[in-house]
Amino acid sequence: MFAVQHRDPGSAARRGLLSLYHGDVHTPAFMPVGTNGTVKAVPHTMLEEIGFNLILGNAYHLYLRPGMDVIRQAGGIHRFANWNHNILTDSGGYQIFSLASFGKITEEGVRFRSHIDGSAHFLSPEDAVDVQAELGSDVRMCLDVCTPPEISYNEALKASNITTAWALRSRKRWKEKESPLPGALFGIVQGNFFKELRKRSADELMEIEFPGYAIGGLSVGEPFPLFCELLHFTAPLLPEDKPRYLMGIGTPEYILEAVEMGIDIFDCVFPTRIARNGTVFTSRGTIALKWEKHRLDFTPIEEGCGCYTCSRYSKAYLRHLFKAREILGPVLTSCHNLSFLFRLVRDIREAVSSGTFTAFKKQFLAAYNGTQA
Amino acid sequence: MFAVQHRDPGSAARRGLLSLYHGDVHTPAFMPVGTNGTVKAVPHTMLEEIGFNLILGNAYHLYLRPGMDVIRQAGGIHRFANWNHNILTDSGGYQIFSLASFGKITEEGVRFRSHIDGSAHFLSPEDAVDVQAELGSDVRMCLDVCTPPEISYNEALKASNITTAWALRSRKRWKEKESPLPGALFGIVQGNFFKELRKRSADELMEIEFPGYAIGGLSVGEPFPLFCELLHFTAPLLPEDKPRYLMGIGTPEYILEAVEMGIDIFDCVFPTRIARNGTVFTSRGTIALKWEKHRLDFTPIEEGCGCYTCSRYSKAYLRHLFKAREILGPVLTSCHNLSFLFRLVRDIREAVSSGTFTAFKKQFLAAYNGTQA
Repeated sequence: MFAVQHRDPGSAARRGLLSLYHGDVHTPAFMPVGTNGTVKAVPHTMLEEIGFNLILGNAYHLYLRPGMDVIRQAGGIHRFANWNHNILTDSGGYQIFSLASFGKITEEGVRFRSHIDGSAHFLSPEDAVDVQAELGSDVRMCLDVCTPPEISYNEALKASNITTAWALRSRKRWKEKESPLPGALFGIVQGNFFKELRKRSADELMEIEFPGYAIGGLSVGEPFPLFCELLHFTAPLLPEDKPRYLMGIGTPEYILEAVEMGIDIFDCVFPTRIARNGTVFTSRGTIALKWEKHRLDFTPIEEGCGCYTCSRYSKAYLRHLFKAREILGPVLTSCHNLSFLFRLVRDIREAVSSGTFTAFKKQFLAAYNGTQA
Repeated sequence: MFAVQHRDPGSAARRGLLSLYHGDVHTPAFMPVGTNGTVKAVPHTMLEEIGFNLILGNAYHLYLRPGMDVIRQAGGIHRFANWNHNILTDSGGYQIFSLASFGKITEEGVRFRSHIDGSAHFLSPEDAVDVQAELGSDVRMCLDVCTPPEISYNEALKASNITTAWALRSRKRWKEKESPLPGALFGIVQGNFFKELRKRSADELMEIEFPGYAIGGLSVGEPFPLFCELLHFTAPLLPEDKPRYLMGIGTPEYILEAVEMGIDIFDCVFPTRIARNGTVFTSRGTIALKWEKHRLDFTPIEEGCGCYTCSRYSKAYLRHLFKAREILGPVLTSCHNLSFLFRLVRDIREAVSSGTFTAFKKQFLAAYNGTQA
């Protein structure tokens, strides 16, 4: 299912091939987030044209809306959304703790209220596996307990223990339960910002044996150095021969750091969220298109970018679309930001293949952060 | 510039070819409205794929935002918006009376305040010609005085007289003024709902001689029979050998009525406006996708439609996108509604060519209005 093809000599970075039911994914890979069965503002054909063949869906959102009866009768999320490539679904754990009200955890599962209509729901780890089986996603995630930074050791320990117990039950259900489409189940390492707990969580999950492992609970608002410290500590704990997924990162700095630590896949709403607000990636950092200085700027967001947006439109036109609140604005900027990250990650893969990842990272960040000589 | 190719034997319907700077347009033709240099929610490539090569832009909106300095430096609206097909611009008359505040008409021109920021502006008929010359549109419209239904004869007479005086000045300016791109200037027949004034307006404009003629001031809220009565009276007043443009219509019933009376081109925001609200055209009338009954409906909006949307997505998925307020919803429904009208008008052209327009109209409306046997 996963094969490492190249290793960077100067770091833990690696290039690999993740073979999923809906096609092979070259790693490292960034996954655009398609919360509701659509990557916000981007038509599927644009995603395909960019080159993405793995996107993320949110089991929590899809379970609440359109609801599992709709998904079931549609024949799964791929057919419902007419996306014939891979989908990874998260279990809903993160959304229950960040979006839903009254999230209450017991050993049995989690009780919560819908952020849409306030309706009461209960989700066990088994339910989360079942929901994702009905979605028919290519990669499914165990239900986990997500904790914010700055909780106590004992609170973090308790959350980590429940996460492990749920992981065990999830794997059992995944093995037992028939699914219309085959999908891998990944465990999620938790442990908050306590290294001891991270180690313990990783060990426990490795004992359960999953086809892949994710690192959860990082990039949740902590300072970048703390993120790095925990990432540098946790990534090497994961098995070499399994895909490693760092949840919730999607800026060039974080992606480069993650790849350097041997991470294979990652996702984030950030690129499309800032795009909908008119902020776009360039090799020299982000720019806000709404600024007055772009009013008469008839150059594309990035010369040589070649994406749908940059090959057709100027910053002046894009700024105009945002000032006039035209829907085409978010469509075009989202398309650019995803194209930018796709190209970055493709360049990263090539740098890993040619053994030049460290130099590539340094050079990219110097330009991106404006510290170029 | 315009050649009638076929005439329907049973009505005034005609098929023609309108040769504009950015390509030939087959008429009858529906023009999607691209108010701000973008047809709302529809990427340009989707418009091209549907087959449109003539869209409408609003001089009023573009003059206010992004502003003429931006358009000028971009090299015109085609280059600014990267739309390499034809654009017809209206003069701004209708918007000034419907959107702007304090529209005040004198013989000299119209004074108004921007609906965006309240700034004060003055537009003479000459200014309207100049603005459209700078936009570089392929068809330009004279500044006219738009009047609501139910005004007095004397008010309507006064408005019509000013419209004629402005038309004369517009044509003079259009002949004198250098334009970066060639564009035709159309006169607009006004006269409110008074037949005598309609006749007078048409006669006066024909004396001035324009490359094409529009009928303005209809479809402004009046009942359909009154619209028909005035259309049936006014259309035959226009020259046979010039293109005829009925402003502001875009539903199947109105389009069929207009074509039957010998109208060649028409525009309306309606198809894209209802689409953004989740209402779509079908051959059996419009349907509101948000309705509960579409929740588990996995068929496309219209079987056999073949548009981008219908060839990929079900009503259940589209309903879900609207319930989740996803941007992709309006993109897909706008695309469908425009595809639907494009196909209707293409079928109309074929019916005219084969001399079967009257039967086509009857059959289409019977299905559309649900009165089919």
